[in-house]
Amino acid sequence: MEGNKLTDANLKHVAIQDSFWDKYIDLVDEVILPFQWDLINDRVEGAEKSYCIRNFRIAGGEEAGEHKGMVFQDTDAAKWLEAVAFSLNKNRNQKLEKAADQTIDLIAAAQCEDGYLNTYYTITGNKRWSDLFEGHELYTAGHMIEAAVAYYQATGKRKLLDVVCKFADYLCLVFGPEEGKIHGYPGHPEVELALVKLYRITGNRNYLWLADYFVRTRGENPCYFLNEDCIKNGNYIFPEFKDFDLDYNQSHMPLRQQQTAEGHCVRAVYLYSAMADLAYEYQDESLIRQCETLWDNIVNRRMYITGSIGSASYGERFTGDYDLPNDTNYSESCATVGLAMFSNRMFHLTRDGKYMDIVEKALYNTLLAGIAMDGKHFFYVNPLEVVPDTVKKNPTYRHVKTTRQLWFGVACCPPNIARTLASLGNYIYASDKNTLYVNLFIQSSAECQLSGTGVSVRQECDYPASGTVTLSVNPQEEGREFTLAVRIPSYSRGAVLKINGREETVQPEKGYLYLKRMWEKGDVVVVELNVPFRYVRSNPRVRHNIGKVSLMKGPVVYCLEEVDNGNYLSAAVIDTRVEPEEEYDHELLKGTLCARLKGVRIDYGKAGDSLYGEEKPVYKEADFKAVPYSCWNNRGEGEMIVWMREKE
Amino acid sequence: MEGNKLTDANLKHVAIQDSFWDKYIDLVDEVILPFQWDLINDRVEGAEKSYCIRNFRIAGGEEAGEHKGMVFQDTDAAKWLEAVAFSLNKNRNQKLEKAADQTIDLIAAAQCEDGYLNTYYTITGNKRWSDLFEGHELYTAGHMIEAAVAYYQATGKRKLLDVVCKFADYLCLVFGPEEGKIHGYPGHPEVELALVKLYRITGNRNYLWLADYFVRTRGENPCYFLNEDCIKNGNYIFPEFKDFDLDYNQSHMPLRQQQTAEGHCVRAVYLYSAMADLAYEYQDESLIRQCETLWDNIVNRRMYITGSIGSASYGERFTGDYDLPNDTNYSESCATVGLAMFSNRMFHLTRDGKYMDIVEKALYNTLLAGIAMDGKHFFYVNPLEVVPDTVKKNPTYRHVKTTRQLWFGVACCPPNIARTLASLGNYIYASDKNTLYVNLFIQSSAECQLSGTGVSVRQECDYPASGTVTLSVNPQEEGREFTLAVRIPSYSRGAVLKINGREETVQPEKGYLYLKRMWEKGDVVVVELNVPFRYVRSNPRVRHNIGKVSLMKGPVVYCLEEVDNGNYLSAAVIDTRVEPEEEYDHELLKGTLCARLKGVRIDYGKAGDSLYGEEKPVYKEADFKAVPYSCWNNRGEGEMIVWMREKE
Repeated sequence: MEGNKLTDANLKHVAIQDSFWDKYIDLVDEVILPFQWDLINDRVEGAEKSYCIRNFRIAGGEEAGEHKGMVFQDTDAAKWLEAVAFSLNKNRNQKLEKAADQTIDLIAAAQCEDGYLNTYYTITGNKRWSDLFEGHELYTAGHMIEAAVAYYQATGKRKLLDVVCKFADYLCLVFGPEEGKIHGYPGHPEVELALVKLYRITGNRNYLWLADYFVRTRGENPCYFLNEDCIKNGNYIFPEFKDFDLDYNQSHMPLRQQQTAEGHCVRAVYLYSAMADLAYEYQDESLIRQCETLWDNIVNRRMYITGSIGSASYGERFTGDYDLPNDTNYSESCATVGLAMFSNRMFHLTRDGKYMDIVEKALYNTLLAGIAMDGKHFFYVNPLEVVPDTVKKNPTYRHVKTTRQLWFGVACCPPNIARTLASLGNYIYASDKNTLYVNLFIQSSAECQLSGTGVSVRQECDYPASGTVTLSVNPQEEGREFTLAVRIPSYSRGAVLKINGREETVQPEKGYLYLKRMWEKGDVVVVELNVPFRYVRSNPRVRHNIGKVSLMKGPVVYCLEEVDNGNYLSAAVIDTRVEPEEEYDHELLKGTLCARLKGVRIDYGKAGDSLYGEEKPVYKEADFKAVPYSCWNNRGEGEMIVWMREKE
Repeated sequence: MEGNKLTDANLKHVAIQDSFWDKYIDLVDEVILPFQWDLINDRVEGAEKSYCIRNFRIAGGEEAGEHKGMVFQDTDAAKWLEAVAFSLNKNRNQKLEKAADQTIDLIAAAQCEDGYLNTYYTITGNKRWSDLFEGHELYTAGHMIEAAVAYYQATGKRKLLDVVCKFADYLCLVFGPEEGKIHGYPGHPEVELALVKLYRITGNRNYLWLADYFVRTRGENPCYFLNEDCIKNGNYIFPEFKDFDLDYNQSHMPLRQQQTAEGHCVRAVYLYSAMADLAYEYQDESLIRQCETLWDNIVNRRMYITGSIGSASYGERFTGDYDLPNDTNYSESCATVGLAMFSNRMFHLTRDGKYMDIVEKALYNTLLAGIAMDGKHFFYVNPLEVVPDTVKKNPTYRHVKTTRQLWFGVACCPPNIARTLASLGNYIYASDKNTLYVNLFIQSSAECQLSGTGVSVRQECDYPASGTVTLSVNPQEEGREFTLAVRIPSYSRGAVLKINGREETVQPEKGYLYLKRMWEKGDVVVVELNVPFRYVRSNPRVRHNIGKVSLMKGPVVYCLEEVDNGNYLSAAVIDTRVEPEEEYDHELLKGTLCARLKGVRIDYGKAGDSLYGEEKPVYKEADFKAVPYSCWNNRGEGEMIVWMREKE
């Protein structure tokens, strides 16, 4: 495979025109990025102050004052810049670009002579690198590097790239195995995958080497963090950290020995993404196996059906195999973004469609559930069952919100969702020298180079409402052989393929139909995927889902909401022998395919008043309306449930 | 009713000889009290130091040093003394009494000139009463008063009683509505019910008045605590308190307006117990109604079937109506003791058997589940469903222990369980001038005065294994009319009554058979209660128990344990059309009546490896062994479940 590596699509050459996704993507340009710009400049009335841009001004000497906000407050500017960059790929919005350039000037001015860049440590004068466990310096560096790479790719402007290269050069002097260097690694992984990106764009192998050093030495015995002041003397920046074990940040044992995904989910999947990047760059088979082991553990033991991870709020972490409580879980939006990143990298490593199944699951369910249609309200936490009255009165659920929250405080999830939406093209297509992979069924067109010719592909579909995907292939030069690889999702059995109207039989390999031929202008491929509504059950080792089903259509998980079905949704029992009926709701998010289900439910009018008794509850016939999980809570507060009791 | 009030049995005149209860009661004398004596004297190797007795020595000037331990560390000595006193009622153990007398000498020496008594504030010199919200001074005073009353009743010795009277006299000078006095009340209720006890034994109405003042003014607007330094300036002794609202300690509104049981459960039921005491003393009808309202809210909306309360760990508190999660709950042993105290007082107020139903439920289930048969290991937290692997890996359950813990740290539950066992006679019998109430079916004999003559009653039974209760009545003088009131538990339908072998028909009134007659020596009453195994269901508003049943026999709740039934107990489905079969286990706690149930369970051998799929799990026929909940976790660590899925 060396020499013909798979890469993401170039975002400049992917144009999405999809009625479903455009609703969300347009929010990024029209609402989220301008709103976040106002937020980080402290111009949103009623919102907590960010101080983010102000900190850069102070660090750069433009203004006097103290650092305010979190130790990682700089990342708000970095994440905003990265999302702006992705957005500029398709549309050079002058106003946004000007704001970005000004921000980059401020960032550059805040950089120290030696390359160091971090407003918290620069302004406070606290000792650099004295608290890798909590200080978030490398995490912040990582986001700045990601922003710089994206901005350079979008605009060709080098200023921020030069800043982060100087910073990364400095990091290479500070960290490493040599005497006098720090033999540590970040408490919150992120810089590792950023350094790989920086290497890819600059070709400077020092950056790749440093990423590898951080990953390789992580968790070696004795763990570096145990010698830091915070742990040795209990001087924690975040007092809650004192309760956490080293597995919280994946430093409990050397990473290559870890067999299960442990600890804080966002840290874990960012770290594993970097591992996959390193496995790809070095084509390191044992590291690939290690990535597969951890990915398998997540996806086959520790992931919610909605593509979210994090079974516990305390530690925002993985817990144990098959432990997937539906109401007390954390399931952070950022962790889902990270799982999509990790899975996409695993696809690049292996070209196995099972990885894109998970990318698709994450994007269609938890990612979209995170954002309200006004672009200003977000869920950080994404449970699969919510009873608002209980959530409000029982502090076990104090991390759960019953409506999306206005973006403030720790601004991790909103910009993470924004940058994912703004770079969606990366997930739709991937290519090597002679193969174009069509991974997601989102109406769009893509341009790429295959077998030495420019090829444009136009994808038409209304997925997953319909399973028909039409791909029009137009090579600039005919007579070149190249391959179109069309993903057949694992749930779709018996897909039908037609090329130029003629049915053809091709067996999928690892989830892809490989269509290798001499393509001609105007060739049309139609793939009919099989995407009926289907009932999905959990492995019975998931004790919270025993006796329950969920409804899916393609990658989309459905749920019941109180607004459609009344309350006490736990008492709904679905008769899965009856086929779900399609029901198009023209109001819900301007048009959404819903389902009508049959079953029974408890007749609460006949329920007695006593708390315990011998009588059985009385059931009555009922039908239910199910809506996509991603749409929940767009019609006011109410109960929601994904896993519904199944009639025996 | 005035003039013929109901009172507890005099513990000196109740002798228990019950093969079931003696196992536990004997532990108090033989293990718990000597062990606790060593603990509070810092003589238990491996246990955290208590410093309790040492603090008294320092405060009394016998030793130099600093106060160590919690602000309420003195209560360990007080609770030990109270349990010793209850134990001395039946057996004047010389060694224990000597140790108690020495402790009382230390306590007396630690008392200040003005009557104030609290080693924490005396040794540290911190300002008295400056932090009623958290300082636990009045809570500590309450336990000291309860100990003094019990010790005086058991031994006739006045020394500690004099100490606490002097203390209480001082409290009456410090607290009250007059100018210059503190218009506050305790953050942790306890002193209120203690002051009523002190009033009852001394006749000093000032103590009753002060208890009433604390209860009456609690939660008046503006709440007293809001003016304390801890809340105003965030100077908390316990930093976790800053998160709690005033309902945490029932001071969010005037107590007489509170319609639902809120906040920290132990605080709530101690407070409500004092309210019931005051309602009794003043025969205040509106206060009785208020007690009934809160009791009804607990028992009909917020109580576990095992008689425990506290649906959330955070705040150890009540949450909302019908919110009764089985695995994340707190259900503290102390709260169950408090619920029994409150319910017993409600019985005294109303003579309604429904209150004793709850006393019985609390004692037979959660109280006994709290204690291991070695007398040294205890559960503070009592969930109804435990999966050890999940509890250990998922920090949502970090308050749950999978095996009983050696007694250390905050020693609330062990001595609370001990004092309840040592004073069990108080719950078995109650009497007024001419009626003896037989409330619990525990083999025992009691002596009391009825209609002017001494009466001895001997109760023989093997309850709840059997429903036959034989009461032999022996008045010293014949020809006196008095009443024997025998409780008919609400679950027992169609009890049969025989007097001297002849069946008689008497309709129960509010849960009691009132047998009023001229009793003669040798009269024998036999009551045949109906105590078959029965399946009990929750009100369907309890979403966690929908589709589930529990098994009961009399007051005893049963559960499934992994040691008998294998793991994955959530996958067990009980066929409730099949009658449970009795199965006597000669090993379990030296002999326990168990049940064998029929049903089906998932065949895990046929479960696939994937986390989500369309196939249904395969069930196979199975039978299950259920054991009393109180016996769980006496045969090693393993899963346990009370609410079992029911076959439709």
